[in-house]
Amino acid sequence: MKIAILGTGGGARAHIAKLAELGHEVHVGTRNPKATLARTEPDMVGTPPFGPWLAEHPGVELHSFGHAAARGELIVSGIDGHNAVSALSAIAGQLAGKTLIDYAVPYLYNPDIEHPWPTPWGVMPTLDPCDSDSLAEQIQRALPDTKVVKAFVTQEQTTVVNPGAIGGGDHTMFIAGEHADAKQQALDLLKAYGWSDVLDLGPLVAARGMEMYAHMHSAIGFALGFGTHFGIKVVR
Amino acid sequence: MKIAILGTGGGARAHIAKLAELGHEVHVGTRNPKATLARTEPDMVGTPPFGPWLAEHPGVELHSFGHAAARGELIVSGIDGHNAVSALSAIAGQLAGKTLIDYAVPYLYNPDIEHPWPTPWGVMPTLDPCDSDSLAEQIQRALPDTKVVKAFVTQEQTTVVNPGAIGGGDHTMFIAGEHADAKQQALDLLKAYGWSDVLDLGPLVAARGMEMYAHMHSAIGFALGFGTHFGIKVVR
Repeated sequence: MKIAILGTGGGARAHIAKLAELGHEVHVGTRNPKATLARTEPDMVGTPPFGPWLAEHPGVELHSFGHAAARGELIVSGIDGHNAVSALSAIAGQLAGKTLIDYAVPYLYNPDIEHPWPTPWGVMPTLDPCDSDSLAEQIQRALPDTKVVKAFVTQEQTTVVNPGAIGGGDHTMFIAGEHADAKQQALDLLKAYGWSDVLDLGPLVAARGMEMYAHMHSAIGFALGFGTHFGIKVVR
Repeated sequence: MKIAILGTGGGARAHIAKLAELGHEVHVGTRNPKATLARTEPDMVGTPPFGPWLAEHPGVELHSFGHAAARGELIVSGIDGHNAVSALSAIAGQLAGKTLIDYAVPYLYNPDIEHPWPTPWGVMPTLDPCDSDSLAEQIQRALPDTKVVKAFVTQEQTTVVNPGAIGGGDHTMFIAGEHADAKQQALDLLKAYGWSDVLDLGPLVAARGMEMYAHMHSAIGFALGFGTHFGIKVVR
């Protein structure tokens, strides 16, 4: 299958590598491919530059967001919450009629915080939108001809593509969205990743809770020790 | 031990009954004991009136918030988020030097919503505070001489007092607070309730995530079917 991954950070790379390994044709989208390939230093969160990483993954192609989206039959977006709606609206035509899985946490961009992710009990990041809206709902409203699914957001992406690494895979993945066929596509992808317990939380309004869980996820991560990966199991 | 339970709703009753069963001396606090005992109809969320319930639990005493707090060595508050800070501030003297476990979700009081709890995909409740503050932090700031612990808030209270009812008890309870000795008291109480997996999320700022998890909790509950009780296990 032709799958477009929008984003080149650590989370996107986990999906790119796994999807290529599964035999999919992966098209990676970035805002400015030349600028992405020109970078030689790690980014603000320590992710190594994309060019050398791409060179180690033959067959994966880098494009602009629009060109990648045009080539993908299924779209996976990790574009950060601060930029996602504008970046995706600009390529609405290339996304029309397709399923888009959004996994971003909409951290509020705050120029006073050097590091956009939570640091152990320093300045806490906040979310925008939060509580009465969600990034996934915003994207769906901006792209009425695209079928938006919120998924993956409650885990590290390295764990999303390899659930068996934690507790033998006995933990729970959540999905939400307005379109049953799109959720089925997300479910099929998750099964290919190795997930056995996927809980459909219903319509996209459930994305509010999935995104707001970011605070709890960070707190659990700090409690277990920085860098510890973990999962959440819904025990019935 | 003398334990004060502030609140008379369904969650409070779960704690009252269990603590009495465990042999504690339970003092229940309510805003206006006469008014509480005078009610003969179920409340807005269908909880039967407190008087008949109290009559079936001999030895449990009903007081004003202040009188209950004065008698308790340990305080458990389920006072709703809309009223908690003002009600607790009014009895700061009776709470000074003691541990207070707060388990309320700070749902925003909205007169347009007849039912203050989430209904399956109708009008969604929102939280106040949310994201950049938490009810537990507000209570701690209002009561600097009290040791506030956030706990119990990620579960139904009937499950908090009986964790073994779900998955043989193999799920996770979370606590947070600034005071190690107060968290130890909460931990001891949870062990008496039957908990084996209690994760200390650190300082009280973690209460933000614990309270914001309310949306996710509701969504999971709707997905599993109204009335289904469940737990969350952190899978390492």
